Amino acid sequence: MTKADIVNEISKTTGIEKASVLETLEKFMEIVKDSLAHDENVYLRGFGSFIVKTRSQKTARNISKNTTIIIPEHKIPAFKPAKVFMEDVK
Amino acid sequence: MTKADIVNEISKTTGIEKASVLETLEKFMEIVKDSLAHDENVYLRGFGSFIVKTRSQKTARNISKNTTIIIPEHKIPAFKPAKVFMEDVK
Repeated sequence: MTKADIVNEISKTTGIEKASVLETLEKFMEIVKDSLAHDENVYLRGFGSFIVKTRSQKTARNISKNTTIIIPEHKIPAFKPAKVFMEDVK
Repeated sequence: MTKADIVNEISKTTGIEKASVLETLEKFMEIVKDSLAHDENVYLRGFGSFIVKTRSQKTARNISKNTTIIIPEHKIPAFKPAKVFMEDVK
């Protein structure tokens, strides 16, 4: 399923015009990204939380060049599904 | 940040009324959950993918009761952020 499929389905079932649905979803994704980029988690009751996780520094190896690379500590976006979501999928 | 905060911000910046924004987001979350519940992944370009992962059967232990529990193979919802999202957060 893609964004276009979702926009169509939302518009069909709610009667809200496609352009507004698309604009809302685009803005939603932008806000979630911006929020996490500023280290602020997003909590969506009944769906889940978008959170920032920290990955510690680690060393990796480039085997073909026989060198060691240090990957510095960095942050990654993650999603923690709500219990109801887990139950739906299980 | 919560759903209410996001609805406010979307409505403020797009001019779409709050009720429509809320209805769109509620429907969006419902569709994503339903889709994964039916084993169909959701791909959102520039944001990420909601996917179903399978966890193998494993045995766990209840230490206080000294019993072994078998957790059967099951599915979990997961989110794989898009590269741009990873870069935004890093």
